[in-house]
Amino acid sequence: MAADEMERVVLVRHIDGMPTPDDFRIERLAIPDLAEGQFLAKNHFVSCDPGTRSRLSPGASYAPPLPPGAPVDGFCVGEVIASRNDRFAVGDHVALSGWATHVVSNGRGYCLKLPDLDVPEQLWIGLLGVPGMTAWFGLKRVAQFKAGERVLVTSAAGPVGATAGQLAGLWGASEVIGIAGGPVKCQWLRDIGFTTAIDYKAADFEAQFAVAAAGGFDVMFDNVGNALIDRALPHMKLRGRIVVSGQVADYNTPNDAIPGLHNTREFIGRRLRMEGMVVFDDLPGFAAAQAELAGLIKAGSVQYREEIFDGLARLPEAFCGLFTGQSFGRRLIRV
Amino acid sequence: MAADEMERVVLVRHIDGMPTPDDFRIERLAIPDLAEGQFLAKNHFVSCDPGTRSRLSPGASYAPPLPPGAPVDGFCVGEVIASRNDRFAVGDHVALSGWATHVVSNGRGYCLKLPDLDVPEQLWIGLLGVPGMTAWFGLKRVAQFKAGERVLVTSAAGPVGATAGQLAGLWGASEVIGIAGGPVKCQWLRDIGFTTAIDYKAADFEAQFAVAAAGGFDVMFDNVGNALIDRALPHMKLRGRIVVSGQVADYNTPNDAIPGLHNTREFIGRRLRMEGMVVFDDLPGFAAAQAELAGLIKAGSVQYREEIFDGLARLPEAFCGLFTGQSFGRRLIRV
Repeated sequence: MAADEMERVVLVRHIDGMPTPDDFRIERLAIPDLAEGQFLAKNHFVSCDPGTRSRLSPGASYAPPLPPGAPVDGFCVGEVIASRNDRFAVGDHVALSGWATHVVSNGRGYCLKLPDLDVPEQLWIGLLGVPGMTAWFGLKRVAQFKAGERVLVTSAAGPVGATAGQLAGLWGASEVIGIAGGPVKCQWLRDIGFTTAIDYKAADFEAQFAVAAAGGFDVMFDNVGNALIDRALPHMKLRGRIVVSGQVADYNTPNDAIPGLHNTREFIGRRLRMEGMVVFDDLPGFAAAQAELAGLIKAGSVQYREEIFDGLARLPEAFCGLFTGQSFGRRLIRV
Repeated sequence: MAADEMERVVLVRHIDGMPTPDDFRIERLAIPDLAEGQFLAKNHFVSCDPGTRSRLSPGASYAPPLPPGAPVDGFCVGEVIASRNDRFAVGDHVALSGWATHVVSNGRGYCLKLPDLDVPEQLWIGLLGVPGMTAWFGLKRVAQFKAGERVLVTSAAGPVGATAGQLAGLWGASEVIGIAGGPVKCQWLRDIGFTTAIDYKAADFEAQFAVAAAGGFDVMFDNVGNALIDRALPHMKLRGRIVVSGQVADYNTPNDAIPGLHNTREFIGRRLRMEGMVVFDDLPGFAAAQAELAGLIKAGSVQYREEIFDGLARLPEAFCGLFTGQSFGRRLIRV
């Protein structure tokens, strides 16, 4: 690739069901000239987020669907290398949006000039980015979590779930129960402070879940989808809250094949509240939460895992692996 | 029945599916002697509430299930005719609980000494009782309804739904859409101020619903159950709220046969909130709400219908009719 060129990931076709790497292609193009007010960032890391899946099929989600041929959005972190924007200078570190080696931005939309919190820069698209902020505001704003409550977290070894579980513990949860796939992930959850970790792939999952559920859940922080929510509903405590943070098991499923919620009788008797969230609603609170969370990370109180893939060309493969249960930690592409 | 006797309705067996009158029997017994602190009320009216159904099957709801042979609870209004309780004097008008001609109470539990608001006394188990308070606090506390919002109400010709729809209109809803069964109920809804009334029994229900849904709903006040909620989910607006107030279509259905909620993808994108309610949580606010609502009723701003059956013996028949769509207004038994 020449110095005046960039690469980006483009959607080949609308996706029906599970995404595969050939649903994407890498496009090379000349870096466009900067207009007044724009700057150019060179990315260091690009992230894979399950939420991106929802824009790759027809039908509106929280953002409109991408047309085939369009470049795909995803979070990235890098450095300004040219600028015609007063607020962004060459050398500034920024978090932006774009599955690409370079991003041209006018500073609007999701565009964050990174303060110096003395953390690895990729954390800005990890625990200090959407996954960590989702955990933070999902517990604080949506669940209205209070010390002494018992918390169930699904996809608990993922970056959102692991952060939510650790924060719940730090903020005084009586117990934190995580559901994850496989003994390695479950052991890690125990290592980082989950009270209980349940392996959904284990033969005795039902029995393990029944034991954990006997104590009831004040908060369910769900990243998976309806099947686990329906299972948890009869075990929610009075005034329990279900945070619909992600639906990784349902993103690839047509609506009429998504498992139904049937145990809804519980909503009235137990005064349950189920609420969906998009963390960008909490943008005004990000800076304060990021500073506090960075402190917890540096103190070792909140831990995380990363899986780093080298080269933008591996992004489609890394993204598709999010939906097969094989990922373990924050998936990042080092550009 | 001798002057020292009373009658009450007793559950014969746990009910599986639709209730029938022979699931109940009328039991005659001697009025018990009053212990210190108790009083005796003679009922004038007893009410039929769909919510009572949830306690007639095994399995806990917001209250534990009744055992076969137990007297059934239901709201009633009457007059104190004997008292050994300092707070309740002979002649006081009271609202209590019990499907019976007489109630012995110690003044605890659901027991309201009625203020003189110059309204027909049966309103205290109607719009000034559980149905009206459910509408009031469902909109105010649970839905956090705001002027300018568009509201969908199901079972809209029932006492909860009709009151909720009228209150939404009085409080500044941009439009109030009601779903009810049959042209007579729908015409009544239009007469009392609903913007639109949709007949779920009509051949063109789908088309009517599609027209109404095109404008989106900020609030769905649901008294019916999952089938209508699932239908409404894709039409909820950003930050829409679904109040789970009643589930009359699902009460008689085993959990695994309750229609599932499948359109749950909308929860995240639209930040939907679905919350169940039991109006007794709002007891501290009842008196103020009742005074205000009584004023609206006397001014003719909130209207209601009643279906009055004479004699406790007709209570089982009147109750079972709640689930067949034949009731139209508040069903009351004049004792």
